[in-house]
Amino acid sequence: MIVVMEPRASEADIKKVIARIEELGLKAHPSRGTERTVIGVIGDERVIKREQLALLPHVENVIPILKPYRLASREFRPQDSIVDVEGVKVSGKEVVVMAGPCSVESEDQVMRVAEVVRAAGVRIMRGGAYKPRTSPYTFQGLGEDGLKLLAKAREKTGLRIVTEVMESADVDMVAEYADLIQIGARNMHNTKLLRSLAKVKKPVLLKRNFAATLNEFLMSAEYLLSGGNDQVILCERGIRTFVDYTRNTLDLNIVPAVKLLSHLPIIVDPSHGTGRHDLIIPMSRAAIAAGADGLLVEVHPNPAEAFSDGEQALTPDVFVQLMKELRPIASAVARVVV
Amino acid sequence: MIVVMEPRASEADIKKVIARIEELGLKAHPSRGTERTVIGVIGDERVIKREQLALLPHVENVIPILKPYRLASREFRPQDSIVDVEGVKVSGKEVVVMAGPCSVESEDQVMRVAEVVRAAGVRIMRGGAYKPRTSPYTFQGLGEDGLKLLAKAREKTGLRIVTEVMESADVDMVAEYADLIQIGARNMHNTKLLRSLAKVKKPVLLKRNFAATLNEFLMSAEYLLSGGNDQVILCERGIRTFVDYTRNTLDLNIVPAVKLLSHLPIIVDPSHGTGRHDLIIPMSRAAIAAGADGLLVEVHPNPAEAFSDGEQALTPDVFVQLMKELRPIASAVARVVV
Amino acid sequence: MIVVMEPRASEADIKKVIARIEELGLKAHPSRGTERTVIGVIGDERVIKREQLALLPHVENVIPILKPYRLASREFRPQDSIVDVEGVKVSGKEVVVMAGPCSVESEDQVMRVAEVVRAAGVRIMRGGAYKPRTSPYTFQGLGEDGLKLLAKAREKTGLRIVTEVMESADVDMVAEYADLIQIGARNMHNTKLLRSLAKVKKPVLLKRNFAATLNEFLMSAEYLLSGGNDQVILCERGIRTFVDYTRNTLDLNIVPAVKLLSHLPIIVDPSHGTGRHDLIIPMSRAAIAAGADGLLVEVHPNPAEAFSDGEQALTPDVFVQLMKELRPIASAVARVVV
Amino acid sequence: MIVVMEPRASEADIKKVIARIEELGLKAHPSRGTERTVIGVIGDERVIKREQLALLPHVENVIPILKPYRLASREFRPQDSIVDVEGVKVSGKEVVVMAGPCSVESEDQVMRVAEVVRAAGVRIMRGGAYKPRTSPYTFQGLGEDGLKLLAKAREKTGLRIVTEVMESADVDMVAEYADLIQIGARNMHNTKLLRSLAKVKKPVLLKRNFAATLNEFLMSAEYLLSGGNDQVILCERGIRTFVDYTRNTLDLNIVPAVKLLSHLPIIVDPSHGTGRHDLIIPMSRAAIAAGADGLLVEVHPNPAEAFSDGEQALTPDVFVQLMKELRPIASAVARVVV
Repeated sequence: MIVVMEPRASEADIKKVIARIEELGLKAHPSRGTERTVIGVIGDERVIKREQLALLPHVENVIPILKPYRLASREFRPQDSIVDVEGVKVSGKEVVVMAGPCSVESEDQVMRVAEVVRAAGVRIMRGGAYKPRTSPYTFQGLGEDGLKLLAKAREKTGLRIVTEVMESADVDMVAEYADLIQIGARNMHNTKLLRSLAKVKKPVLLKRNFAATLNEFLMSAEYLLSGGNDQVILCERGIRTFVDYTRNTLDLNIVPAVKLLSHLPIIVDPSHGTGRHDLIIPMSRAAIAAGADGLLVEVHPNPAEAFSDGEQALTPDVFVQLMKELRPIASAVARVVV
Repeated sequence: MIVVMEPRASEADIKKVIARIEELGLKAHPSRGTERTVIGVIGDERVIKREQLALLPHVENVIPILKPYRLASREFRPQDSIVDVEGVKVSGKEVVVMAGPCSVESEDQVMRVAEVVRAAGVRIMRGGAYKPRTSPYTFQGLGEDGLKLLAKAREKTGLRIVTEVMESADVDMVAEYADLIQIGARNMHNTKLLRSLAKVKKPVLLKRNFAATLNEFLMSAEYLLSGGNDQVILCERGIRTFVDYTRNTLDLNIVPAVKLLSHLPIIVDPSHGTGRHDLIIPMSRAAIAAGADGLLVEVHPNPAEAFSDGEQALTPDVFVQLMKELRPIASAVARVVV
Repeated sequence: MIVVMEPRASEADIKKVIARIEELGLKAHPSRGTERTVIGVIGDERVIKREQLALLPHVENVIPILKPYRLASREFRPQDSIVDVEGVKVSGKEVVVMAGPCSVESEDQVMRVAEVVRAAGVRIMRGGAYKPRTSPYTFQGLGEDGLKLLAKAREKTGLRIVTEVMESADVDMVAEYADLIQIGARNMHNTKLLRSLAKVKKPVLLKRNFAATLNEFLMSAEYLLSGGNDQVILCERGIRTFVDYTRNTLDLNIVPAVKLLSHLPIIVDPSHGTGRHDLIIPMSRAAIAAGADGLLVEVHPNPAEAFSDGEQALTPDVFVQLMKELRPIASAVARVVV
Repeated sequence: MIVVMEPRASEADIKKVIARIEELGLKAHPSRGTERTVIGVIGDERVIKREQLALLPHVENVIPILKPYRLASREFRPQDSIVDVEGVKVSGKEVVVMAGPCSVESEDQVMRVAEVVRAAGVRIMRGGAYKPRTSPYTFQGLGEDGLKLLAKAREKTGLRIVTEVMESADVDMVAEYADLIQIGARNMHNTKLLRSLAKVKKPVLLKRNFAATLNEFLMSAEYLLSGGNDQVILCERGIRTFVDYTRNTLDLNIVPAVKLLSHLPIIVDPSHGTGRHDLIIPMSRAAIAAGADGLLVEVHPNPAEAFSDGEQALTPDVFVQLMKELRPIASAVARVVV
């Protein structure tokens, strides 16, 4: 942490800051520059709060030096973490495509999609039983009945299941059905939910909130890691910007940035990320080329009649085309799509 | 809803859209333009989903005409709603200032702030017992013990209490202590929490998510209204933009926009909205001048030692100055600050 | 400037950075922390470029300490600068309202607006003769003929004229007609235009680009100041965000922020800032309450037939109402509207 | 264009709108819905301005149906436009990599980079002689001397030259030296410059402003096309968002979006788009995988000593690595990198 003093700060002001730093158990290291004095704080700056120094007289700015996350950092763990979803390894050589409907709607729908995606090579099926919807007047998910349909599909097809949990009260129940538990973008900041999932013995898929910075995203992962769950997969799903031709702005830049700063796997959701079915294939190719460890894609047998988000779902035919186009891209970055 | 056909759409494509509209129980009204045919949908468009029409062949775009919210709209209720917080009326002639610490830290701290704000004319005290924090390594609130301290302050001072609830499981407990229950910005999209609060007989303070559009904000209010709770106060607290000299960008434009479109009261939180104590007085004046029904302001006896958000808290002295500066502004817009 | 070394940086890496700093004519001041070494750079950091240090081996980050602007800073000049527009003082006790049509369209239109705004107390009239339009198919301004009409209005009414120049080639010509020369938002980064205007003996109204940070805005002012023109008025006119109920997001937070960091006057354009005539009165009140030194407002005798931006123009009646509502607000912040 | 009436609009209000539409030479087609009447406007809506209808009494909204651009649209020209830069075809089978220094600094620097990039397969070299810089205290480019050095490099190596022009006064001069003339991001809205370049017989590289929507980007292209120059290459170079780990947010989504809506080629600048040399290789791979027709990449023999933007420049070695990694990606999307 660096404390920058205002030019008009007196010697007494500087001494006050130094005294406060020492009182907090750290060491101060002042440099008197030509325009300003800056004071380095030596020791673990995470134990103090900015304002303990920022609000002292004639302090101009307090600049943190250390990253706020520890366990999620590549410094803490230099090698890539591989997350195991019932035998499917995320962050290894394989690019893992997870696919399925936005919402679980009926047994027939789930089974049809399960067959389609399995036939195309998919080993993890997505499907939502609890849906956070903008409008109270729209379908909110089948709840536990939906989870049962997903379990049935798993039994029949061998597919693993990834599904969202929305509240800590439901964590145990969802964990019974899911192989990978999703924290949705709207819940990335839900610290109660994060704490509950930290205690579960299942891997977690953590989606980036549409207004989250990289630091905030990794700090949510830090809740899971520091609470005892190190099976965490990150997922980029689009951010909110001024752009209006896509529903969100899929931010692929975060993929190589995460790879530099963290050991955690990261996958990409081009369905929510763009909100447009006609952009999903090119943006999926781009995600893999950027280094993503997998994809999360919406597939529906009849998108026009989907209970939710039909405009961003692929038909079975287009999904097969997607898988076909991903293979040479994966191979170009020395990976494989099963 | 308006369906815009592509220029290359054939007569058969147009007929297909019309047939689908009628199948959905609505009436179609085509206009054949020089470049495109557009088809008006007559009836309550809220019963259909965009994609039921958008994914038909050669449909270029589907444009909604009606606003997605009903009960929150001024069309539904032309006169202003007045929310009663144990006798304090929000949205009447009085500009209601709610003030207090970010977090409840100790009995001494709460009592000191309570005295300060009451003496300055405040009748509703804020204070957080459950804190959604970015870092798992920081103070997360005193929980129910904090609520008890707030209740004690109420008993002693007569101040009403506004405090945040973070999960539906805690709603009943928090409702026992609070006079006004806050839904934090991170939970504006938490539909389970919204549904729980819709059933409580207490007014709700709904904070805007930092990435929420006006429609989304009013749709969260719609969850409360349609679920049975019409005692809803909106609160603007800053949005996320590229701007870096404030922690968030306080968006005062939403104040008069809400007044045009909705009957609900709206207050402004300049503390979170700017994240800088030195901008709070001018932005509070601006909020009242823009038409806000009140403010939510952080006050701490010693901001440098606050357990959270000290950089945006006012000292007691500066808070007194704020109240003094608000009075002539309120009077300039024909309102009063008590 | 602070150079943060990676944890794995060796003693040799640190020495290399120190040597480079000294080679560049500055002094290095290393602090060896528990997790990282940081090296303070002593001297005027503005003479070196970040990358001269950032790209050395095992440098993690380079953090600037000094603000990039000098002449525009309040440190350089602690008291407010007052800009004189032919006798109208901007940044004094008076809140200066500049008003007029978006585009100059005809003699009749200019004269009618001139009468209206003068009668309401305005002393500076705005009017565009050169219009930067998004579409090549729309009205682009009358050019010099428009300037002549503005001059005629000045002669007849005594109003001063503010008008935009779009290219350095036109600066001398526009300077002949204008009392205050406007640099539009799209040209805030146009360094050639800034350099030309730095040499003109007329005050300049510099509008913030809709994607400019505060530093960038003040750096554009720095082009003018360092080039020899210290008669600069800043103007906030809305930034681009995800928000869709206003055309732009008027960012009033910049008003008190500029007052803290700079000595330059700042006014607010609520017409472009919101893009909606029905939000202009409340946001104008808010701007003055936030501390703005004036307003730039569009007025048109018949907005529905304006050649440009009619939806954000006020009718004469509404403009009179605006002026009426501003007076008590100005008075509440110890200022006056003439 | 669709005019949506307020629910309270009377029959007389509706008639007034219809009369106005007819007066403007178009036909009106009203649909009386259950909650609102909407009126379709039949004919070329581009001849009227929104506000001519929006400001009539009890009009709630006016919604455009047609896209604002014509010549840039794929409707106007269904097949891809191929732009010829002295024999190098952009938008054909070849992915065209343009590379070189941010600024031209010296003959030695230009010649060294020219050799490096040519050896790696590049056929168009970039280099800036006029630099729009945020700070007046930094290097602003060598001007015409820089152009001469670029011409010398062309002579010696056979490389084509792409370089920026900043003002219409310089267009003829820059056109003498350049094979492809760049309009920088800060000038995308500079209509005078666009009009000048429309008259030049050279292809233009139009960079997206960092706050431009897709419509605005294509409307700038429309200035060129409608003015007579149809040799236009678009270039995505990052947008401004709340994200802080990249200097800008490279928005690859625009690549497939442009391919759907327009016939113009589009390339990607990952150097400005990310601002970080360590993200350029993965984001370049992603750009090609998304369907981009080429790249614009900064290369410098010694980035730490570059006069501008050194942190985003590749060293010669890393550039060679980039080219190597692009080849299999290009091949995966059925294209080639020479």
